[in-house]
Amino acid sequence: MAEVHGRRREALRRLLRAGGLDALLVTNLLNVRYLTGFTGSNAALLVTGDGAVFCTDGRYDTQSASQVPDVERVVERECGLSLASRSEGRVGFESDHVTVDGLTELQEAANRELTRAPGLIARLRLIKDETEVEALRMACAAADRALASLIEHGGLRPGRTEREVARDLDNGMLDQGASGPAFATIVAAGEHSAIPHHEPTDAPLKAGDLVKMDFGALVDGYHSDMTRTVVLGRPADWQTEIYELVAAAQAAGRQALTPGTALADVDDAARSVIAAAGRAEQFMHGLGHGVGLEIHEAPALSRAGAGTLAAGMAVTVEPGVYIPGRGGVRIEDTLVVRENAPELLTLTTKELVVV
Amino acid sequence: MAEVHGRRREALRRLLRAGGLDALLVTNLLNVRYLTGFTGSNAALLVTGDGAVFCTDGRYDTQSASQVPDVERVVERECGLSLASRSEGRVGFESDHVTVDGLTELQEAANRELTRAPGLIARLRLIKDETEVEALRMACAAADRALASLIEHGGLRPGRTEREVARDLDNGMLDQGASGPAFATIVAAGEHSAIPHHEPTDAPLKAGDLVKMDFGALVDGYHSDMTRTVVLGRPADWQTEIYELVAAAQAAGRQALTPGTALADVDDAARSVIAAAGRAEQFMHGLGHGVGLEIHEAPALSRAGAGTLAAGMAVTVEPGVYIPGRGGVRIEDTLVVRENAPELLTLTTKELVVV
Repeated sequence: MAEVHGRRREALRRLLRAGGLDALLVTNLLNVRYLTGFTGSNAALLVTGDGAVFCTDGRYDTQSASQVPDVERVVERECGLSLASRSEGRVGFESDHVTVDGLTELQEAANRELTRAPGLIARLRLIKDETEVEALRMACAAADRALASLIEHGGLRPGRTEREVARDLDNGMLDQGASGPAFATIVAAGEHSAIPHHEPTDAPLKAGDLVKMDFGALVDGYHSDMTRTVVLGRPADWQTEIYELVAAAQAAGRQALTPGTALADVDDAARSVIAAAGRAEQFMHGLGHGVGLEIHEAPALSRAGAGTLAAGMAVTVEPGVYIPGRGGVRIEDTLVVRENAPELLTLTTKELVVV
Repeated sequence: MAEVHGRRREALRRLLRAGGLDALLVTNLLNVRYLTGFTGSNAALLVTGDGAVFCTDGRYDTQSASQVPDVERVVERECGLSLASRSEGRVGFESDHVTVDGLTELQEAANRELTRAPGLIARLRLIKDETEVEALRMACAAADRALASLIEHGGLRPGRTEREVARDLDNGMLDQGASGPAFATIVAAGEHSAIPHHEPTDAPLKAGDLVKMDFGALVDGYHSDMTRTVVLGRPADWQTEIYELVAAAQAAGRQALTPGTALADVDDAARSVIAAAGRAEQFMHGLGHGVGLEIHEAPALSRAGAGTLAAGMAVTVEPGVYIPGRGGVRIEDTLVVRENAPELLTLTTKELVVV
């Protein structure tokens, strides 16, 4: 892994040179992890033209020696300030992460003005390397298997509560080696399925309910994200109708995932299917988002999304149709954009599952 | 609850007036929750001299109407910018939370310069009201009961793994109504117990091990935090010795929790007990920290802590002694500072438990 992190720091150095910076002070902990592999809760990294200095506090002395063997290391409590005071030349800071008060402190420690340098590492993180894709693949597999196990064991049946089902999914993902859920699991049954973001309650599942489950697993720091909607018993016509509509929109969205496609066009590919059925206003959120070290990261697949897709981006595709007071359907996969067809990481069937 | 939130906004207005501000733009989501009760993932609040405007996006329209019935409400995606554009007069922003780039955007939206106003709500949150103490009490009880259940059911025995024990504690807290663990549960057995922050592994517990468990529950957004260290089988003399030392230090720390005591003196009350036993360098972290809507918040009970205790502060007291390569002991409670003696919220025994 040291080699992978070294490559990432080298890619960052190219961006620094292009931006006329001598160094970048990295204080966003996720970015420090991306560039070094360190997983503790306090650290900073100074990346210079030909080297780097890593800082963490005493609690992580042993851990960081093992996780970050290839970078000069200092052990101090106030890592950002410590590295700022060691910095030289034209030094960038993460202006999209450092607070206004934080900048004042950093500049005092550095005894110089620092230069705004937002989004440099985000630009690198946008394109996943194969180490990252493998972690996402494992995270998606853990979620797939947790759902399969839930269904096999009869965990979806009238009388069980949304909260119980959510807990089974969370435990199922842990059984599959996930370090935790990627975010608070959503289980929304019956009318609740019409609420895009619904917190599971003690309401029992009922025969005839649509049950929408939006969940994901965390593996090696990487987040998967999937949604499936099943029906408890024989589906009513309106349920089948919106299910098939959402499935068609989702397929159209996935097919639009090719390098060079405008982000807004991907959203439109799915949205226009729903709009053509006269249900445009029942799909009131974006089509998807990037996933990686964060559950929501660039790129945003939405009408407002600026930019285009590139090979190596990892995204969700998750259209939905929500009918207030009745119910809703969302279908979501995690995928990686590839030169030809996208690589599907979520492997659970998208046929309407009747349990 | 609307009354409680109204009182908090009124207290904030007094701080605004004292600081010469006409309004405060609140973009820290936890602070928005504190002032309104809103629990969604996107919101902002503008508190003015005689009113307030709340903003969230379309996903939370219904939820916010029910959670925030008593405040003028707007529904837009970019809440901070939207409220900045509505602000008038001398408007403060949370400079300890807003990023450097974020401030640029807010000032463009406001078309004026905003005024740094760090820590105003943190100052209010420092003193817990009874609604908050009740949530902390429930969160502490959920953790107490999860540990009791783990021990009753024989969950602590040689052969089980750290990871299994951690999961039992997490599930036990959910069984008690917690919405989740307050942070990643630490279970550290044998040599691992000498690592202050240890991530549970698949290493099995062994007879004779010290087993250190640091965990807490989340209830209504409030975090509890407790640590107990037990021994599997008959304790060795060195284990009893450091256990009794840590217990004595912890008692001294708790006894020092009185209004008006300097924070550094609370730390010293416990630390001097450990130092007197010649083990000063084996206690290398601070004595404790505030808890509330965050697992770590003000005040810090440490040698560097500036300021004094006041009635209503909720803190942890958690000294430890760690012997590298052998094992360690930490004992931690959550308490509320009261006029006379502190109120102990963590009720599990601090006698050495032998399982």
